[in-house]
Amino acid sequence: MTIPELRVRPLVGLPEVRDGARIGELVAATGRPGGDEVVVISQKIVSKAEGRLRRLEGVTPSGRARKLAEATGKDPALVELVLAESRSVVRAEPGVLITETNDGWVCANAGIDSSNLPGEGWVALLPEDADASARRIRAEVRDASDASPAVVIADSFGRPWRLGQAEVALGCAGLAPLDDWRGRPDAHGRTLAGTRIAVADQAAAAADLVRDKDSAVPGAILSGLGRFVTDDDGPGSKAQQRPADQDLFR
Amino acid sequence: MTIPELRVRPLVGLPEVRDGARIGELVAATGRPGGDEVVVISQKIVSKAEGRLRRLEGVTPSGRARKLAEATGKDPALVELVLAESRSVVRAEPGVLITETNDGWVCANAGIDSSNLPGEGWVALLPEDADASARRIRAEVRDASDASPAVVIADSFGRPWRLGQAEVALGCAGLAPLDDWRGRPDAHGRTLAGTRIAVADQAAAAADLVRDKDSAVPGAILSGLGRFVTDDDGPGSKAQQRPADQDLFR
Repeated sequence: MTIPELRVRPLVGLPEVRDGARIGELVAATGRPGGDEVVVISQKIVSKAEGRLRRLEGVTPSGRARKLAEATGKDPALVELVLAESRSVVRAEPGVLITETNDGWVCANAGIDSSNLPGEGWVALLPEDADASARRIRAEVRDASDASPAVVIADSFGRPWRLGQAEVALGCAGLAPLDDWRGRPDAHGRTLAGTRIAVADQAAAAADLVRDKDSAVPGAILSGLGRFVTDDDGPGSKAQQRPADQDLFR
Repeated sequence: MTIPELRVRPLVGLPEVRDGARIGELVAATGRPGGDEVVVISQKIVSKAEGRLRRLEGVTPSGRARKLAEATGKDPALVELVLAESRSVVRAEPGVLITETNDGWVCANAGIDSSNLPGEGWVALLPEDADASARRIRAEVRDASDASPAVVIADSFGRPWRLGQAEVALGCAGLAPLDDWRGRPDAHGRTLAGTRIAVADQAAAAADLVRDKDSAVPGAILSGLGRFVTDDDGPGSKAQQRPADQDLFR
């Protein structure tokens, strides 16, 4: 098949997002994404719109949080929030706290961080259900513009074995998150074994390349991925979670 | 700063690559990359050009390979090649063999695979030193075209915790593999802690979005990343390897 060029343009012109904002309406007003495009949105503004900011000062750490804070050298109030947002602790070492979040993601500090927030002492929690966030934002775009682009909620995670953070998808709607080639032939007609392409994660990574960390650009619009955009919202990013019993690194 | 649009076009028109091919010359002849562009090239054609194809039939497995083959359910000849290409075994379970390669990458089967190869029973090893491959290809492009684009050698790896394979950089030349924001201010003027962006990996991921696994498209050319392209070849992808003593997942 002919593969189109991929174009990624920064999502510019969005106002500062506050609690209760309808991000899909704001995107429709500025980005004008088409129905075969993919809108990648930073987790941070979704958390802001969903009232997921917290002040560390108002948090009372439990005994367990205080112990874990001591073991990791982290702020006890932050650790309290991390524990409340997590199902389980995967690794706790000096300087490192990796958990599985209530939403099923394995990442540092349950994805809680303080960058690009207006006030000192505030942190942002991840959306409670980023697939639901993506579906809602997609519906808002559709209602405001009659186009129904795919929506991806993205955040940058560290990785084992490799330095540097890469953007991944936490939620998506209208995008096939995995392109499944298992059993399909390669260019030489031989059957491919075990190949699923992480489309949503790679779309998130591509979007990150047009955002600098000081740019306040909260996302990007991708053209050229229409073959992965679906009418229905699809399984979401939950389909990208490796089941714990098939995972060797917990 | 103004962030340009990112454009990713498939690298088309390359002839079938054989042992001894000068990939940089072939790229210059077809893709005409500019000096501020990034050429992402599939590991597979680099391995072909570097004579890294092997026939499983000609491999005699050692006792250790036979034991590990039994434990993992894998072909003993394949396991013999994996061990020869690896410094250490990270995980061995039924269906899974993850090692650290001699070149320092942690991945399944030492990166050895059989897809998109012309003959039955053949496999491709990773390049011995993919940074050196990238430097050589960059020099070939420069000699053939007077432009000196960055070069990334990419392969798709599985990841802990997440399903699906994402493309990552195994080697690069002329590209800052990590964009280091540690100590720099975010959009609100607050100092960012611990943030390094995996630029080379994300460029590899973006490139993968214009390649389908049956398309025989061996790479992509990225425009809009000129701010990461350097005159000198730079540290290469080795700079992306997390030191074992700072890694919690070995």
